[in-house]
Order: sequence, then C-alpha cells, then structure tokens
Amino acid sequence: METNVTDKKIAYGPEVDLQDCPNVYAPQNVKPFTPPPTGIDNLGISSTDTFSVPGLGEATVDFKGWVRVARSKPTEDTWENAEVYTNLIEMYMRGESEAFGPIIVTLQPEILSTGMIRNPRVSEGHDTRAKACRMAVAAQFELPKLGLRLFNREPIELTIDNVKSIPPAGSPGKGQIYFVLPLFSRSDPDGKPAAYLTSLKFQMGTYLTPGEMQSPKQ
Amino acid sequence: METNVTDKKIAYGPEVDLQDCPNVYAPQNVKPFTPPPTGIDNLGISSTDTFSVPGLGEATVDFKGWVRVARSKPTEDTWENAEVYTNLIEMYMRGESEAFGPIIVTLQPEILSTGMIRNPRVSEGHDTRAKACRMAVAAQFELPKLGLRLFNREPIELTIDNVKSIPPAGSPGKGQIYFVLPLFSRSDPDGKPAAYLTSLKFQMGTYLTPGEMQSPKQ
Repeated sequence: METNVTDKKIAYGPEVDLQDCPNVYAPQNVKPFTPPPTGIDNLGISSTDTFSVPGLGEATVDFKGWVRVARSKPTEDTWENAEVYTNLIEMYMRGESEAFGPIIVTLQPEILSTGMIRNPRVSEGHDTRAKACRMAVAAQFELPKLGLRLFNREPIELTIDNVKSIPPAGSPGKGQIYFVLPLFSRSDPDGKPAAYLTSLKFQMGTYLTPGEMQSPKQ
Repeated sequence: METNVTDKKIAYGPEVDLQDCPNVYAPQNVKPFTPPPTGIDNLGISSTDTFSVPGLGEATVDFKGWVRVARSKPTEDTWENAEVYTNLIEMYMRGESEAFGPIIVTLQPEILSTGMIRNPRVSEGHDTRAKACRMAVAAQFELPKLGLRLFNREPIELTIDNVKSIPPAGSPGKGQIYFVLPLFSRSDPDGKPAAYLTSLKFQMGTYLTPGEMQSPKQ
C-alpha cells in the first residue's frame, strides 16, 4: 500500500500534502458538522456501474472494495466556512459480469484523482449546513476474460450531495455521466473508444481496518 | 492560424489526422443525414456562460466568436452507421462583463480537445436518425481587468443532441456541468480553484469566411 502521488503526469486539482497526514482506520466515531484534522481515510465503497461494449452489448456490474482518500487540513476551523481538498490515492474494487467476466477497478497511476468538499450554492437545494462533495477520477478497468484493460481520458465525476460529516461515510453518490463516458483500451490507447461507461451509482462505506484493505494479487 | 496538434501533453480522445484535411469555409450547403468527407470546419459560435469568482460574486456573460473543428473521415459511408471523431483545434470567443471586464476564451495549447458524433442509444430519446455530439474542451479564460488567466483541469463537456447534419451548424448545445466546474489561475496553477464555471449554453453558428476568422491581437 505504498502510495506516491508525486511524478503524476497531470492532476485534476490541488495535491494534498501527505506529510503528517496520518492513516485513519476503523473504528472511528465521525462527528457530524465538524471539520476533521487532515488524514488518509481508509473506507469501504460499493458501486453499480453499467458498461457498454460495442459489439458485445451492455452489462451492469456490482462492485465492492475500498478507497484511500487523503484529506487536506480544512481551510477554516468552523464547519460553516471550511472547505476540504481531497486526493483519491488508492482504490480497489472488484465485480463480476456474466458476459464480461470479472472486472477489477483501480486508479490510473499517471493521473492524480482529486476532489473537494465545498459549500453548495443555495440553488443546489441542499439541506441546511450540508456540503457538496465532488471527485474527478482517472480509473482503469481490468477485464481479464476479454483481455481488456480500459481507462477513461475524461475524468469520471463522482458527486455526493447533502454531506453532513467528513468523510461522508455511508452516503450515496453518483457518477455524473451525460449518457456516455468513453473508455479506451491500453492496447490501443490512441484509438477509438473500446467501451463506454453509461451509468455509475456508488455508496461510500465506513472506515475499514488495515486487514480489510488488502487487494488480492492479480 | 497555424495549428499544430502534435506535442500535446494529453488528449481527451483520438487525434484527427490533419493531413489531407482541407479547410471548409462559407459558403457551404450542408446536406442533412449525409456523412461529409474529412475537413476542418470554420464555424461561428456564441455562448452564454456563468462564472462564480469567490469574493467577487457571479457574472453571466455572452460570448461570440469562432471555432475550427477538424473532423475525421466517417467510419462508414452510410449516415445510419457513421461515427465521426472531432478535434477542436482553435477557438476564439470574446465577451464582456460589467463586473469582470472583457473575457477572451481560447484553448489550452498543451491539451487536445476532442469529441465525437455517435449514434445515441434509444434511452437518450433523440429524434429518429439523429445523432449525438460531444466534445471535451480544455479552455482558458483571459480576464485582463482582473489580471486573471483561468483554465479548467477537468474538461468542459459540450453536448449537442438531435444532430441531423455534420457539422451541426445552427444547433443549440449545453455544457454538462454538475453545479460547478473548478477553474484554476495560471499564476497559481496548483492552488485552489480561483473561480468556477457554473453554467454554459452555446449555439453553433454557420460556416464563416477566412476574413471572419480573425482574432484581435491581444
């Protein structure tokens, strides 16, 4: 689980300083409406994604796994004014499709996936005091049965509304996809899209123990 | 108007071969439901964008200008099956805000803005035979009055539905923004967002003549 976010080719937003950014594992008592000190959250995640592969059709796949999210020091001490910047520094999810076989989701090593927790504008219709969370993700999808390793070139934008605690453990979220997000093949990275992500709904899990954060050898 | 799309640091999708890709200027007679030969479309564009600058407030600005869009050879000869890949190789738009002064929009030179015209799935609800157009754009926004040069790190996704001709001249389109798209400052590129793009509606114009494609010296 060594993580090095330097030497990334590009970043979608600000980099979180990992110096003095301690790992946070289960068990934790997350206080609502309270900006937490900086840390790396080790959390469960589940997601239901729909893929469309030209010539092969569509499949909706349930994934389970974990994420490691580095959180910045909040910009202010008070919940009302605080913004927090995040980096998704590691991810592992596994799912299985009858048609496509197993699918393993990890991060693209050369891109820094970033996000933020901010105050929504009134027009966004959140509950009082709740914040909005967004994260731009560069993922890769291994489909060993099809011999495919897919990746996105435009970030997958994950959003969580009505955030009342940091991290928003247990909250549902959505991938903001306008019908299709092109996925490309590592074996033909400059070619046409090899597949599309057409829908993504996820649920942040709670804190995990170090023992629950293992990924099987691939 | 020299354009060189090589040596880009990243591309959001496939690069269109500009060899043997002739410029297409006004006047043109665009045939509906007909895949055109490859070419660089020189088109007018107008857009209404809303910006939010922390500490300064919001402004909605009307822009006018032009784009140059390189189109690939269609993947098939028939309209029904053809897909076309696009690169936005040049853009110039100008608008003016009372609060923020003039705003000039161009492309980020180090990123290749790309798109495609594809067959929508039935669930997208398009008119019969119509196609869907999407383009991921890396823009920069000059605000000389504020001494700001802003740029996006996540692409701005421009979409046009119900595309019945290529190019979709005269069609309305939308920037698919989930409430906010962070914009960063060239003077602090790795810092926090300096502004947000919160709404974008555009209209593709028709073909222009070479004389109409000039941009004022900045």
